[in-house]
Amino acid sequence: MSQPLPAPGPGTRHPSDPGTRHLSAPAPNPSRTDALPPLASGPGGPDALRPLLDTVLDALAAGSGERGGPLPAGGPEAVATRVADALGDVLPDTGDPDALRTLVQVLAAGAADPADPLCAAHLHCPPLAVATAADLAASALNPSLDSWDQAPAASALEAAVARTLARTAGLADALVTTGGTESNHLALLLAREAHGGGVRLVHGAGAHHSLPRAAWLLGLPDPVVIPTPNGTLDPAALDQALTALPGPLLVAATAGTTDAGLIDPLPEIAGLCTAHGARLHIDAAYGGGLLFSDRHRDKLAGLEAAHTVTLDLHKLGWQPVAAGLLAVARPHELAVLHQRADYLNADDDTEAGLPDLLGRSLRTTRRPDILKIAVTLKTLGRGGLGALVDQVCARAREFAALIREHPGFELYDRPVISTVLFRPAGADDTAVAAVRRRLLHEGRAVLGRARLDGRLWLKATVLNPHTRPDDLAHLLKLAEGSTPG
Amino acid sequence: MSQPLPAPGPGTRHPSDPGTRHLSAPAPNPSRTDALPPLASGPGGPDALRPLLDTVLDALAAGSGERGGPLPAGGPEAVATRVADALGDVLPDTGDPDALRTLVQVLAAGAADPADPLCAAHLHCPPLAVATAADLAASALNPSLDSWDQAPAASALEAAVARTLARTAGLADALVTTGGTESNHLALLLAREAHGGGVRLVHGAGAHHSLPRAAWLLGLPDPVVIPTPNGTLDPAALDQALTALPGPLLVAATAGTTDAGLIDPLPEIAGLCTAHGARLHIDAAYGGGLLFSDRHRDKLAGLEAAHTVTLDLHKLGWQPVAAGLLAVARPHELAVLHQRADYLNADDDTEAGLPDLLGRSLRTTRRPDILKIAVTLKTLGRGGLGALVDQVCARAREFAALIREHPGFELYDRPVISTVLFRPAGADDTAVAAVRRRLLHEGRAVLGRARLDGRLWLKATVLNPHTRPDDLAHLLKLAEGSTPG
Repeated sequence: MSQPLPAPGPGTRHPSDPGTRHLSAPAPNPSRTDALPPLASGPGGPDALRPLLDTVLDALAAGSGERGGPLPAGGPEAVATRVADALGDVLPDTGDPDALRTLVQVLAAGAADPADPLCAAHLHCPPLAVATAADLAASALNPSLDSWDQAPAASALEAAVARTLARTAGLADALVTTGGTESNHLALLLAREAHGGGVRLVHGAGAHHSLPRAAWLLGLPDPVVIPTPNGTLDPAALDQALTALPGPLLVAATAGTTDAGLIDPLPEIAGLCTAHGARLHIDAAYGGGLLFSDRHRDKLAGLEAAHTVTLDLHKLGWQPVAAGLLAVARPHELAVLHQRADYLNADDDTEAGLPDLLGRSLRTTRRPDILKIAVTLKTLGRGGLGALVDQVCARAREFAALIREHPGFELYDRPVISTVLFRPAGADDTAVAAVRRRLLHEGRAVLGRARLDGRLWLKATVLNPHTRPDDLAHLLKLAEGSTPG
Repeated sequence: MSQPLPAPGPGTRHPSDPGTRHLSAPAPNPSRTDALPPLASGPGGPDALRPLLDTVLDALAAGSGERGGPLPAGGPEAVATRVADALGDVLPDTGDPDALRTLVQVLAAGAADPADPLCAAHLHCPPLAVATAADLAASALNPSLDSWDQAPAASALEAAVARTLARTAGLADALVTTGGTESNHLALLLAREAHGGGVRLVHGAGAHHSLPRAAWLLGLPDPVVIPTPNGTLDPAALDQALTALPGPLLVAATAGTTDAGLIDPLPEIAGLCTAHGARLHIDAAYGGGLLFSDRHRDKLAGLEAAHTVTLDLHKLGWQPVAAGLLAVARPHELAVLHQRADYLNADDDTEAGLPDLLGRSLRTTRRPDILKIAVTLKTLGRGGLGALVDQVCARAREFAALIREHPGFELYDRPVISTVLFRPAGADDTAVAAVRRRLLHEGRAVLGRARLDGRLWLKATVLNPHTRPDDLAHLLKLAEGSTPG
């Protein structure tokens, strides 16, 4: 039965009672529980965590040094081999006290590190240290937001912070989600419950793939896809579609397309939805972060006209995953999510004043991702977050200017948010794809790809506020060096 | 633009390049990025995190001391007031460098702490320190499992660990989920895609509420609910239902009901499903942990006959939320989850050897919850985890014996896993509910509730392996003291 402690700290023996309300509790006694591995919370939690966190930080540093670049060299097979070697038997009969160090180090050595300025492919942000530290408290205390008696303070915190974020977007309330995909799913569900199972989704070709996927999940009719030759939803084309299609209709617009960071003409789209009686959802998973910036906020005009808005602070919000939200204009629509489970929200408990939280999510057990968000909003303030947004947008514009001036590259367009699309001049699509894969395989840079105007482009999504102009010049040089000349 | 650093550590200036592959990168220069808040990853990440983690541990200790018991006293309004006072303006114009300490402390002071032996209501486990420490690395590196170039090592780790856990349950592969609710949703989706939208769910009255909810989400017919007067699915009643109902049918059995921790007769149910050509899903979110125990594993015989099995290591696995899995017997059925998004899994990238990960989840961006699971499995081994399972099951049996011998209480039944139902002898349901609420309001204990046999019971779910027999005697004394005499 006895188990080696991973790294025992003082005071980890037993969550003994430090308070005054348990004076009648028995004094701690040596018992067989001494040999059990320590817990993260309780009075002994912090002391048990301290040496383990040191191990994690050391392993992160060692793994990062071992990697020595934005991602590991050698491609998928080489990484899989290193992971398999470190992992060995996944579930051995007896434990290995060094597993924490070994596995964290191999994960760090094999990471695509978004904090490296040369890792710039996706909407994959480097998290702020302060947000990551706050997230530890959520893991340690392990509140679960499906009932008040599992999360007394966390549920109050979530309610306040979610509402503030919704109001920042011009809406009334918000649910916390695992990201844009769950938010879009919820938005379609609310539309289905408001308008029936025949509601048809209408979206632009540049919308996120989670939108048609949500229609499939929810058993809705096949969506109508409007071509977007210029990358954004064209009001004339939308008008035509809304005129031709029988209702009920749900239009999904995008504020920050995944491929190019483009923002659909929101005020015109909102006007058309009103005119045609269509419901409006706006996927602002990427662009929503512009709300923090005095300089860029105007680009989101029209957001407040939506019935639902997807926000996602693990993009322009520098949170560890997950940090999604779905903002809603009409909180009473959330009533359809209501669930009754006697063990979590019995009627008499609710009448006696215990909050009913079960209708705040499609999940049941649910981690308080709101804590790291709240700590970030408070620590940086709107000004601090806005400065980060301004910084990455400015860097993207500078990168675009660099490309425009470079004879060896073609620029797609001036960036609207922080996405820059470019391609080696004169290269065909096969060569463009090969540049990206070569850089990945060699572990030199992580660039993305996007198909627009019928051609394949390299994509840099600047989400790292610490990126300097020199880093981007270096990134361009790497792309140049990997292009067959 | 400049922003006060929350707690600057040395070396947090810039994720400069420590490796050899970037020798041509420019040397770090003082620049305005010096004033930006530090990131969690990159070479400077560990040093930036260290002082912030100290702040978190101190705030956890201070908050826990302030609480002085299993949950805060005063009820929902008192907690909400304390949170509102600590929170103040959620999104101030300028930042507050002390927000991390303030908010973590108020969260800890207002937590229902599952590491306190008197917090024993729900399937809400105290996480192991080693799992929580590992989870920090996931937050810091922020890999996202929707594409290889965001999670090279994490995706390899997930594939290996998920498969091992599936095989431990006698199935072939597993997807990682946010918990039992998402696992059940996925199980119903796979049934819908295998048998069409007319597939009807058949479940016992004691099944988890997420099962009928998933049927609603997926647009399936209303489920057929089989009464379970004894708490488990009766094979004779199931046989009758399967005989009477037109197909296709999906039977959902439960290994560890939420209310009582009961296990349906799995081999008989599996036999009936085979005989009637019905598909079988087993929700083993709670009971699945018995697989780690030599002593209790036999209770899960029949699990391997299911098409899909829900597992959940944030219950009998001592993980921070989230740690769910859906094990599948036929991995080829997962093909229906396949998605194509050129930016994540273009055909030519897949052909060139980049793994296609998009069909491994209904989410897109996705945190590597597998890391903490892998670290726990390796650190403790099957023996160590089995010892924890045995410990909580033994404690629950001891608690039940204590209740049986107590003239003031009635015991529901001998526990099958670690859930003990009891009620003050002679009390009516209103009085039973009031006992629980009084203990909650006074911050003295967190007990659950369950309605079984047409009566309301108090519920203790023993999930804390550090709980001692004396703690449970104390818990019973508190319940006794709160019962109107």
